Amino acid sequence: MLTKQDIVRRIVPAYSGETAQSEAFAPANIALCKYWGKRDEELNLPVTSSLSISLAQLGSKVRLSRSPGDDHISLNGKSLEASTSFYKRAKAFLDLFRPQPDFFFRLDAENTIPTAAGFASSASGFAALVLALDPFFGWNLSRRELSILARLGSGSAARSVYEGFVEWKAGQADDGMDSFAERMEASWPELRMGLLVLSSEEKPVGSRAGMKQTVNASMLYSAWPRQVERDLTLIRNAIRAHDFVRLGQTAESNALAMHATMIATEPPILYWKPESVAAMHTIWKLRAEGLPLYFTMDAGPNLKLLFTAGHESDVSKNIPGLQVVAPFGT
Amino acid sequence: MLTKQDIVRRIVPAYSGETAQSEAFAPANIALCKYWGKRDEELNLPVTSSLSISLAQLGSKVRLSRSPGDDHISLNGKSLEASTSFYKRAKAFLDLFRPQPDFFFRLDAENTIPTAAGFASSASGFAALVLALDPFFGWNLSRRELSILARLGSGSAARSVYEGFVEWKAGQADDGMDSFAERMEASWPELRMGLLVLSSEEKPVGSRAGMKQTVNASMLYSAWPRQVERDLTLIRNAIRAHDFVRLGQTAESNALAMHATMIATEPPILYWKPESVAAMHTIWKLRAEGLPLYFTMDAGPNLKLLFTAGHESDVSKNIPGLQVVAPFGT
Repeated sequence: MLTKQDIVRRIVPAYSGETAQSEAFAPANIALCKYWGKRDEELNLPVTSSLSISLAQLGSKVRLSRSPGDDHISLNGKSLEASTSFYKRAKAFLDLFRPQPDFFFRLDAENTIPTAAGFASSASGFAALVLALDPFFGWNLSRRELSILARLGSGSAARSVYEGFVEWKAGQADDGMDSFAERMEASWPELRMGLLVLSSEEKPVGSRAGMKQTVNASMLYSAWPRQVERDLTLIRNAIRAHDFVRLGQTAESNALAMHATMIATEPPILYWKPESVAAMHTIWKLRAEGLPLYFTMDAGPNLKLLFTAGHESDVSKNIPGLQVVAPFGT
Repeated sequence: MLTKQDIVRRIVPAYSGETAQSEAFAPANIALCKYWGKRDEELNLPVTSSLSISLAQLGSKVRLSRSPGDDHISLNGKSLEASTSFYKRAKAFLDLFRPQPDFFFRLDAENTIPTAAGFASSASGFAALVLALDPFFGWNLSRRELSILARLGSGSAARSVYEGFVEWKAGQADDGMDSFAERMEASWPELRMGLLVLSSEEKPVGSRAGMKQTVNASMLYSAWPRQVERDLTLIRNAIRAHDFVRLGQTAESNALAMHATMIATEPPILYWKPESVAAMHTIWKLRAEGLPLYFTMDAGPNLKLLFTAGHESDVSKNIPGLQVVAPFGT
């Protein structure tokens, strides 16, 4: 079995020094066609392709320099203890890139998205870290290679190395060298995404464990890859045609099908809170009344709403507490 | 294509008069392995077999006599208008059995289950009606034949012609003559079912329409028949072994998988209310704390709880408003 280190050795050039400091930003991304289920746990190789939209200025900013003695990691201005899970995960990832065992990093990360609310900060975090490592060590890698490296930190980080619409190709190779994201050549300035935070409690089951359990113990999961195949085509076509209703319908259906595979897992995984279901019914009611409004959901209780600029005031009026993002600027 | 009338002609003996009045009772039943999806809409032939438990004294009582002029139908002591859906459905079913077009029935039905709350009163209603028709016309049919006739009124009515554990075999024949229910030779006096009414609003999508939409427009439905096949074996074995945990786990997982196929339907069908999800989380929490308590759900927002007599007081204390049924008596 290939390890992450094997892949890094293939991609990363030999060490030839580093700069004093580098900085990078990567956007969070919300999948319209979801990534759910791995074919390789070590390399984060997915069962299916997926397609996301990056959240413009919402994401992670990372500053990287060399540190004496030991890694020093801070998040949102707060120095992290070595016992925190964020510290451990970041350190394990940095292990892949140390020129010598006694080479330590100072890593300062800042999230511009609501933290601990299921908004995929690990995706933007690992992508930003890879985007900072590249100039730090002077690798000068391609986006494709950076996408593969980010994927080793967190699967969906593969998509966060780009702005706009991004498709992560599942690939077929055992080493995952064909499993990377690419930006879609498409812009949709009127598109809006609304972030609705209903609960910021920690998830009872993490995404990684949830995926694994679904693949192993949900009989309905066997039908998921075919649904993704259909949805990817529908969503790509909807983006190219700026067909908002088709985009919204397909993204919502894809998210619900993903949650359905989890609900059918034994024991069941239900990320929904009562508030999640109340919000869904509200959205369906507004839609039945004529408002073109759809949602998507990741492995958590919160909803991400899809609508267009022309309906922003109607949506915000009916859904209090919504944070609205314009992925292509306003 | 065969019609209901074709099937009735095959089963029901030639008319030779009727008695003045007949009465029958049939229990409601709650499926532990669900019936969801038809392979024949006219004859109510299911895609898969299913397995239920009858609710003892909770069900429908029917009194049948001849009526001059027109059908006269009452429910719970209230005479029904010809425009109500219950009247229309009962009349259409009675049409199958009129010796002459001007033969009219007086049908008085009483439900001893909470009405309009998703407790399958159509199953017990049609079963009771068939059980009353048999002595009324002196047919003297077998239970198997009565099960087939009840099925023509409502699929799950096929199961309500028996007490206890009941398995409805899907069958394969186009005429459905091999699609009937049979009683399992098994008793489980300690078993309890708790009915938890969370909402008695009318369902936004009826079971019949919901099933049809799921079969046609849920990509995950393709995996359902295999799950049912597995669950039927597990549940049969759990009943024979009085293995309550296995029974509860499998019944709960089967119900959630059924709902998952609906949630993945496009457009989605979500029978759950916020209160349904709150109740599920409560049950899972109690179970994590050591209480052997499981649930099942039909096409509606309400939950049916499974537990054993020894835990009845703990369950009732933690879940207020529960109506407890002892399917095999106390």
